[in-house]
Amino acid sequence: MNQIIKPQTLKGFRDFLPEEKRLRDYVVNKIRQVFELYGFEPLETPTLEYASLLLGKYGKEADKLVYRFMDQGDREIALRYDQTVPTARILSQYQNILPRYFRRYQIQNVFRAEKPQQGRYREFTQCDIDIFGTTSPIADAEIIACTYASYKNIGYPNIIIKINDRKILFETLERFATDQISIMSIIQSVDKFDRVGENGVIEELTKKGVTTKNAQEIYNSIRSAKITENLNEIISLSNSLGVPDNCLIFDPTIARGLDYYTGMIFEVFLIDLPGKSFGGGGRYDNLINQLSGNNIPAVGIAFGFDRMVEAAQQLDLIPKNFNVNKVLVSVFNDSMLKQSLEVINRLRQNAIISELYPASNDKLDKQLKYADRKGIPYVIIQGPEELTKGTVKLKNMQTKEQKEMKVEDVIKSLKS
Amino acid sequence: MNQIIKPQTLKGFRDFLPEEKRLRDYVVNKIRQVFELYGFEPLETPTLEYASLLLGKYGKEADKLVYRFMDQGDREIALRYDQTVPTARILSQYQNILPRYFRRYQIQNVFRAEKPQQGRYREFTQCDIDIFGTTSPIADAEIIACTYASYKNIGYPNIIIKINDRKILFETLERFATDQISIMSIIQSVDKFDRVGENGVIEELTKKGVTTKNAQEIYNSIRSAKITENLNEIISLSNSLGVPDNCLIFDPTIARGLDYYTGMIFEVFLIDLPGKSFGGGGRYDNLINQLSGNNIPAVGIAFGFDRMVEAAQQLDLIPKNFNVNKVLVSVFNDSMLKQSLEVINRLRQNAIISELYPASNDKLDKQLKYADRKGIPYVIIQGPEELTKGTVKLKNMQTKEQKEMKVEDVIKSLKS
Repeated sequence: MNQIIKPQTLKGFRDFLPEEKRLRDYVVNKIRQVFELYGFEPLETPTLEYASLLLGKYGKEADKLVYRFMDQGDREIALRYDQTVPTARILSQYQNILPRYFRRYQIQNVFRAEKPQQGRYREFTQCDIDIFGTTSPIADAEIIACTYASYKNIGYPNIIIKINDRKILFETLERFATDQISIMSIIQSVDKFDRVGENGVIEELTKKGVTTKNAQEIYNSIRSAKITENLNEIISLSNSLGVPDNCLIFDPTIARGLDYYTGMIFEVFLIDLPGKSFGGGGRYDNLINQLSGNNIPAVGIAFGFDRMVEAAQQLDLIPKNFNVNKVLVSVFNDSMLKQSLEVINRLRQNAIISELYPASNDKLDKQLKYADRKGIPYVIIQGPEELTKGTVKLKNMQTKEQKEMKVEDVIKSLKS
Repeated sequence: MNQIIKPQTLKGFRDFLPEEKRLRDYVVNKIRQVFELYGFEPLETPTLEYASLLLGKYGKEADKLVYRFMDQGDREIALRYDQTVPTARILSQYQNILPRYFRRYQIQNVFRAEKPQQGRYREFTQCDIDIFGTTSPIADAEIIACTYASYKNIGYPNIIIKINDRKILFETLERFATDQISIMSIIQSVDKFDRVGENGVIEELTKKGVTTKNAQEIYNSIRSAKITENLNEIISLSNSLGVPDNCLIFDPTIARGLDYYTGMIFEVFLIDLPGKSFGGGGRYDNLINQLSGNNIPAVGIAFGFDRMVEAAQQLDLIPKNFNVNKVLVSVFNDSMLKQSLEVINRLRQNAIISELYPASNDKLDKQLKYADRKGIPYVIIQGPEELTKGTVKLKNMQTKEQKEMKVEDVIKSLKS
């Protein structure tokens, strides 16, 4: 106990002090509420797994980003890198217990040993929903509808979901793939359209060794690609499930970076904050088989939680003072302490969030300043005079107005 | 992607499948609700910290249990071991931002490289509340009152909080301490009274080298120790804050194992599940100073979350089917799919948790079996006949009863 701590966090890691933690809890609760409403079930997996479970599953580059080490028992272990691979383990480990169609949500932190940079963290929260066990477009539509409803529930205006089908990309781009440039590499360039525009895509393709003529043709053929029957069906089902027509748009340039998608892919945008994707997903019917040897089709989405919290702040969607202590009950002096305690007891019995000033020898002024600094909107004051009359004073910290009333009236007024 | 995963978790780590995860979420929400009501504010710290922050803070034996490793940048880092040391860092790092009296709650997982054994895990959830910055007995009473209300909110009957003061232990036992046996070692033996009884305590003390006569005297003097003024005050304040008189009991044998406590200490028991402590805490006015050089007094409690969940199950406190999907909307066939979607859409608009059967070509029988296996209490069926009449059938999966009604009546009946 003799070393004094250095007050610092590791780069890429964050403390969430109350104000920020509340924002995050607010957004996560809004999301979770919709996940539950749509019949998704919660799942939690350990932070630590055998390293062998994770390594080789995300590609060579990603392996370098997996936090891993030898534990005290000389096992090679690793920190959760995403929620899909552990869920593949779950599907295989508990296949006899899990329902035939497993629809789960998972909200946990994941770890990436990335270079910390603006908006990239080494520990961050992922929110995933997935439906396992069916190739039906109904499942695709349920994922899209639940996604839309989640964003809507937070209050974002002007949500746009752009949807595409990997099959369209494969069919349109197959003829451009060569030994030099794979179809996935072409897809990854096309995927950047939203950020870099037409010229950007063409430039990147030519850098990758595609002729300018072919690059232009890749671009043109993607832009003019026709929607598939499958996608039409998914869009129509999603509309029936409550996603407005004008919010779900076919866009053949949407490609998604990950190579495991096999069918429908989609990405969420907010018109008010253009250029950024706030979440994305799609159908991946082969991945679970590749990972676990169980042939289980899947469709899902991962929410960009940190960006969503930021966006909710920027767009002013978080109610003011939600959940913040509503009342500070001040303490007049030692001999009147008991009465203050009884007042706060009654407030709490009526579900009014309240804090007792935790010292009996501070002047009222100091107690009011404390409430002010903490942003507590009301202070209750009870001096000897009020006590005799059976009243308290309720001070509104914003207007500085003070009203003398009975405790039951304070409760009524604060509850409304 | 060519390695197939081994479906196994590391020893001492747990998966929480939906049923269990829901139980845990239920209990955690009940706790959090009270924490908020009592004006505690949420805090989150990173899973990873500089190892130097944690090592040497919990004692030599504990250091061995800290998960630690070198990261990709050759920093020695460690996984969160408890929530007190990171909070000491927070108090020091953000001292200019935090309120003078900081009351925070923190609910996060901690990691211990312990030998896994019955009821001991390597990753488990801690729920802490603490008030920093005041030595006032009001703060002690707020912690005790919030603790009592949290356990009460889960529904445990017969909660007993046993309370003591380290000062009583120090004053009573000081004269028995020798070079061979420290006062803390005597305290740790006395602490076992609840589990091993009088003879057990005396036996352990004599094994530690205390004479039988002294051991008996230690036991006798503890049993007859008198309550302090300070403790009387805390008990009386706690009573005013709503802790019933007969639930908060002075017990001079309560000692708490950790050596950092300096004043009031307490432990929570459930009469219905005797012998186990379900949480404990106390005042520790020197620890933050020792850790961070900031002289900040503190009082708090750590809840035994895993035990609490277990106890809530054993005592049958978890409502049946809470939060479980209430309805499965079955799909009659492809051509009637749209109608099913509209039905579920209306249910969800009315906040009825519901799941759409994610395939359009399974027989009704199979769909009913699916609902049965998943424990979904109601299934909605709409065939061509009902469609013409503008009705649906609502099947109660427990009674097997089926009622034909309009969707608005289904909503009314499921909401009530």
